[in-house]
Amino acid sequence: MDGPVDMISPSQADSERARLVELAMRAIGRTGENVTRTALATEARLPRARIDALFPSEDELFDAILEQWYAPAIAIMEEAVASDLPIRRKFYEFFARRFLRERARYREDPAAFAVYCEIGSDKIENVRGYIDLADHYLSELIAQAQEDGYFAGLGINRALSLINQMVACYTSPYMMLIIEERLAEDKLAAIIDTLFDGLRAEARGAAPVVGLRIA
Amino acid sequence: MDGPVDMISPSQADSERARLVELAMRAIGRTGENVTRTALATEARLPRARIDALFPSEDELFDAILEQWYAPAIAIMEEAVASDLPIRRKFYEFFARRFLRERARYREDPAAFAVYCEIGSDKIENVRGYIDLADHYLSELIAQAQEDGYFAGLGINRALSLINQMVACYTSPYMMLIIEERLAEDKLAAIIDTLFDGLRAEARGAAPVVGLRIA
Repeated sequence: MDGPVDMISPSQADSERARLVELAMRAIGRTGENVTRTALATEARLPRARIDALFPSEDELFDAILEQWYAPAIAIMEEAVASDLPIRRKFYEFFARRFLRERARYREDPAAFAVYCEIGSDKIENVRGYIDLADHYLSELIAQAQEDGYFAGLGINRALSLINQMVACYTSPYMMLIIEERLAEDKLAAIIDTLFDGLRAEARGAAPVVGLRIA
Repeated sequence: MDGPVDMISPSQADSERARLVELAMRAIGRTGENVTRTALATEARLPRARIDALFPSEDELFDAILEQWYAPAIAIMEEAVASDLPIRRKFYEFFARRFLRERARYREDPAAFAVYCEIGSDKIENVRGYIDLADHYLSELIAQAQEDGYFAGLGINRALSLINQMVACYTSPYMMLIIEERLAEDKLAAIIDTLFDGLRAEARGAAPVVGLRIA
């Protein structure tokens, strides 16, 4: 009513933020480095004050980029957890759909993908929340699997760690950079089946018997 | 007898080469970049001609460094393959002993370890032979396991690829850099037991039925 003439509604601000995040992501892919608010202002041909009003700190800009980067993965995980697929199929969709999406991003622009990996690794504290969220959803799936009798005797965190390690080639952006040509959906499916039939707490002979270690 | 006075025997040349490779490796750790023959001459306080006589090209110096880097891993793999341990124990020793050695190198100097990773990735063609050699030894172990009835129905190359992917956290130097604190021998043993009891060709429900894919 009587606000400043350039006052914008929350939803307008959201859509402008989203547009600027898109611009920022394209700039990252093009320049090979993270984008500052100063660079984004130039990129968007907007006054710096406008950028600052939408992203009050560099960290808020980066977090907005991360949010946009991870949104599709979160949607995939939520759908897989909520689906009424049999448990092995849930696990497969949980990993495979994210893998296929990341692979598409990688193939579209391998250099930009590598830049994102590097930035993510520099800003690992900002990324941590997304890793924790993925662990949260996977823990839910593990609990569902254990109700069906799988992963017998393992605590959730132990099962989580072992499963994360066994599927790391399909979730780690670094592995995508190194061995993308060796990754395939049917191999991921074979790994999921292996987990379901082989993973439990009982030791079955791989570990050395204490005191009987070979030199 | 009547050769030049500075003529050295092949075994002297070998031990001087080994000493220079040690120096080169320390220089790489200290400077954070690969070492040229010029830099090595300065490092060793030797005439450049002497270095060139021992390493006729930059590539030969780099290959000598690689050879020294991988020698312990090769010895471990050969011992594991030749041992008369039960097959699960062989697999475990094959991976665990190399992992423990790499982890010791990593913990001794994480920054130098990271530099080696980067150089190795820049010179992947030189490294390829060692990766192929590890695949060769693992293929032997897989054949032994299949004689005992494990990994039923899988071709050697297929089993090799799946196993390499499932243990990648324990063989990839990149994963060491990222998640070293989450890697542990007892987890590796659990993964090996999982492989032995779960890995076979038969599809058991993880993969989508063709034409019935969820959106």
